Amino acid sequence: MTQHLPEPVRRLAAALAELPSIGPRQAARIALSLVDNPSGSAEALAKALAEIGNIKTCERCFFIHQEDGKLCPICANNARNQSIIMVVEKETDLISIENTAKFPGRYLVLGPIPKIGMLSDWQKTRLETLKKFINGTLNGRAEEIILGFNPNSIGDFNAELIKKELSPLAKKTSRLGRGLPMGGEIEFADDDTLGAALDRRN
Amino acid sequence: MTQHLPEPVRRLAAALAELPSIGPRQAARIALSLVDNPSGSAEALAKALAEIGNIKTCERCFFIHQEDGKLCPICANNARNQSIIMVVEKETDLISIENTAKFPGRYLVLGPIPKIGMLSDWQKTRLETLKKFINGTLNGRAEEIILGFNPNSIGDFNAELIKKELSPLAKKTSRLGRGLPMGGEIEFADDDTLGAALDRRN
Repeated sequence: MTQHLPEPVRRLAAALAELPSIGPRQAARIALSLVDNPSGSAEALAKALAEIGNIKTCERCFFIHQEDGKLCPICANNARNQSIIMVVEKETDLISIENTAKFPGRYLVLGPIPKIGMLSDWQKTRLETLKKFINGTLNGRAEEIILGFNPNSIGDFNAELIKKELSPLAKKTSRLGRGLPMGGEIEFADDDTLGAALDRRN
Repeated sequence: MTQHLPEPVRRLAAALAELPSIGPRQAARIALSLVDNPSGSAEALAKALAEIGNIKTCERCFFIHQEDGKLCPICANNARNQSIIMVVEKETDLISIENTAKFPGRYLVLGPIPKIGMLSDWQKTRLETLKKFINGTLNGRAEEIILGFNPNSIGDFNAELIKKELSPLAKKTSRLGRGLPMGGEIEFADDDTLGAALDRRN
């Protein structure tokens, strides 16, 4: 796609194509737009990139933050119940849950599990950090650990894996509820969703 | 989406969301990946951005280039027929045509026409540059002007607009052929495409 472009534009397209969910065609289109540079988009992006250098990772939940201390605003918030812990794969999952403003607990950002049932070494370290926290601060038993994995077979498998690790350290483990999405219609629900809604009727 | 992210990450997401075809969710996801920075993607992107400052625009066709002179490699290439001119809207369209290695002529990159039938002032300047070239270098008559616009009603309308401007300056004006895409199947072709294939059978 980019063989007819000047070398720096090609390199920019290559750098963009490394980012998640940007394909080579979109990368070329974006690179060209940054060269044309309407309204200084290249400068704005370069400036924003330069400013992310000082982002820290929370020592407790591994979410990114910019606080003075070592904890993110959620873990540092005394109004949050540190004994109700949701394990999520992605930071964006945490953000989606936070947007509901319904979760009183804290998180563990485990990172996307690279291969079904296989944790990276740094992910094992994060799990160990949580275990140490539960043992040290919560006397060895968390109130509840919610396995905030996606409701699909990969999420199911990974949830089971993490459950094995953590259930000895929690009075209760749970998953997010499944069923019909709000505003959805029974007629258009897929079989699996409808089945889950039946199984979990209340 | 980004309200729970640190300010610099929010700004980075905002800068990314300004780029073509990146929505706010994808922007947040990309910003987070740049903060996590697997394999130095943020540095690579920052470096690539810094290097696009010296890209020039061809004085003849307005395609971007990095040559020593004022012309892009296509316009500077004596083996290319400067009297067969394809008018394209986007640089990516030019690249797609170049990838066929079948076009012996040169281009005019007109830029995306912002509103149907309405040219920006800089687009008028580009058209004038082409007219001057034809009048000055080609004795007032190009061999052929190909209106390389998309085969849809907007493209048709804009092609007619440009045709009015340029047909007095060309022995022949044309559009790109229409019909069944290669490898396509009649059964799955839409009515318009099939109709075009019938009208243009050969």
